[in-house]
Amino acid sequence: MLNSTDLETPLLLLDEQRMQHNIERMQSRMTALGVRFRPHAKTSKCPEVVKRQLAAGARGITVSTLKEAERFFAAGIDDILYAVAIVPSKLDHALRLVRQGLKLTLLVESVWAAERLSQHGIQHGHCYDVLIEVDTDGHRSGIKPQDPQLGLVAHALRVEGGEGARLRGVLTHAGSSYALRTPEELAAMAERERAGCVDAAQRLRAQGHPCDVVSVGSTPTALSAKSLEGVTEVRAGVYVFFDLVMVGVGVCAVDDIAVSVLCTVIGHRPDVGWVITDAGWMAMSRDRGTQKQACDYGYGLVCHDSGTPIPELIFNEANQEHGVLQWNGDDTRRIEERFPVGSRLRILPNHACATGAQHECYMALPSSGGVPQRWDRFHGW
Amino acid sequence: MLNSTDLETPLLLLDEQRMQHNIERMQSRMTALGVRFRPHAKTSKCPEVVKRQLAAGARGITVSTLKEAERFFAAGIDDILYAVAIVPSKLDHALRLVRQGLKLTLLVESVWAAERLSQHGIQHGHCYDVLIEVDTDGHRSGIKPQDPQLGLVAHALRVEGGEGARLRGVLTHAGSSYALRTPEELAAMAERERAGCVDAAQRLRAQGHPCDVVSVGSTPTALSAKSLEGVTEVRAGVYVFFDLVMVGVGVCAVDDIAVSVLCTVIGHRPDVGWVITDAGWMAMSRDRGTQKQACDYGYGLVCHDSGTPIPELIFNEANQEHGVLQWNGDDTRRIEERFPVGSRLRILPNHACATGAQHECYMALPSSGGVPQRWDRFHGW
Repeated sequence: MLNSTDLETPLLLLDEQRMQHNIERMQSRMTALGVRFRPHAKTSKCPEVVKRQLAAGARGITVSTLKEAERFFAAGIDDILYAVAIVPSKLDHALRLVRQGLKLTLLVESVWAAERLSQHGIQHGHCYDVLIEVDTDGHRSGIKPQDPQLGLVAHALRVEGGEGARLRGVLTHAGSSYALRTPEELAAMAERERAGCVDAAQRLRAQGHPCDVVSVGSTPTALSAKSLEGVTEVRAGVYVFFDLVMVGVGVCAVDDIAVSVLCTVIGHRPDVGWVITDAGWMAMSRDRGTQKQACDYGYGLVCHDSGTPIPELIFNEANQEHGVLQWNGDDTRRIEERFPVGSRLRILPNHACATGAQHECYMALPSSGGVPQRWDRFHGW
Repeated sequence: MLNSTDLETPLLLLDEQRMQHNIERMQSRMTALGVRFRPHAKTSKCPEVVKRQLAAGARGITVSTLKEAERFFAAGIDDILYAVAIVPSKLDHALRLVRQGLKLTLLVESVWAAERLSQHGIQHGHCYDVLIEVDTDGHRSGIKPQDPQLGLVAHALRVEGGEGARLRGVLTHAGSSYALRTPEELAAMAERERAGCVDAAQRLRAQGHPCDVVSVGSTPTALSAKSLEGVTEVRAGVYVFFDLVMVGVGVCAVDDIAVSVLCTVIGHRPDVGWVITDAGWMAMSRDRGTQKQACDYGYGLVCHDSGTPIPELIFNEANQEHGVLQWNGDDTRRIEERFPVGSRLRILPNHACATGAQHECYMALPSSGGVPQRWDRFHGW
């Protein structure tokens, strides 16, 4: 149990025991399915977290910005996939990292970007490792497996004058799995993600292109796939902490959520049943990801300092540094006794990636019950 | 004009000329109305911005966290109002700052917190300057002017055994002004804010309490007040940059918005008319503040690199590092020619405070057209 009396709030707490459970659950699943696991570090942006994922069996990491690549490389992680389509203005930065010894894999999805990447490699005497982004669910970017564009992008990596880029494989992300609700839907989406990405790889190979890597993943599909035949690696991010959106999708329980925002009651409005805290949208983020789900948690699920949810206290409104919680239980006039000024509450987040981004650090609560440790996370680009 | 070719994106741009115009507009209004102006620094979290507000005539600043107080004090600003109700776990931090020479004013709204504050002052040989928070519009925290609680809190600051706290006055914030739309509604709300806060001050004075400071403010009411009789200072934050929510409220034009997110086109989905950029919700924040307004701008208003809005390109969806823009104009198949991969767009934010918080720094574009300057901002608590 946390003795939180002296901690200044708002503060992002990390329950190491829950996190370790989440890490082992995913890793054992990936091991059983016979694939390499490459966790997405955009969720934590924290070397202490990623070290634990690697210690459990992950091989390499995925990032969403070159700053993440730079910071994790500085922390000793030397195999990194940057899973957002690269553009020329970022290539000098990428080159600096590979020159320092990082094994960096880049992503393309257009002929133009593929050509520029190859030319940059030739110009600077480096051969970039590249994946092509494949669209298996229509939710965002990528090329559909059957689209002739796929072969054209692969071809564009082979510009004349040298070898500036080397096609390593294909990558897809079934992000639309976040909108699903049942195990059957999730298993079907996982199979669609797998089959589409394997199809893209086979089409490239049939055209004479190398395609060793077949990379798929999202937390819901990674936890729902029945088979990963033809897949070589899986990526997932938010599983490490989980959050209320993942509870709504059905891939975890509330008790699996490893991060929460500790806050302090700073006032009341007994006439309307409001408890006011110092965790506003700056501490929670503006993410309202559960709004479209069956259970809308407002800005987060309010819990006692011990971690036990308080279903009658609803986090309806948030200002920058004020959270406004609506008491929906009995005896509204007694909210000042129930939740006195100075008392602590914990809020479970809708979206762990978004809430984490609002904080400079985690206060990690060791499984052993020892003294909380500050784990820094980074911010910006 | 910005030559943005070499800048890595996403990047938060700050148009100094627009900012300076906004600063002078507000300051000249406050000077004409005969009140002290104490800008809220939570919007920028940037000493370079605040220095310009002070140079234009502001006296002291307002902050929403003790970290803001600490950082601005370190930057040489020594008169700071912390405008969120204080709780005991933050008092040691506050005391450290006043011991270093900061003139720090604190806020209370409960008897319990007032007593603890006074006791802390007595215990440590300091007399805190304190305002009582008054509720003039029912939108958040504070005590209604006619509520007997007001006098009880003032009384609670005078604990036995010494002088640990000194009542300096009252403070209110008409945050519900953000939901208004017409000049008449805004002027009426400004008058309600003024009259309520002056009423609270008069009631305290009638009970024998000192009440020199009568502090009101929000950007919409500060720009709409006809009279500020009885008010001694006004606070406002977002006016320094403005944003799309303020356009919707009617207190600025799109051309007044001084911050924008520079991003790069990274891909397309011509079949559905999508332009994909590297500014997702991490760069914009999840704030959807214009959703309830007459004009819903999605995640922001998309502009050309030059700053000219592109009304046919709607920022509908955002992933962490991907923005998905929907082309609603003619000839969807030509979006790749109109917005090629590698080209730049600028996005005006819904809420400048929230978008700013996602970034480590501003890239300030000097009025003179010189080289952009990096202005750091801080993050966390």
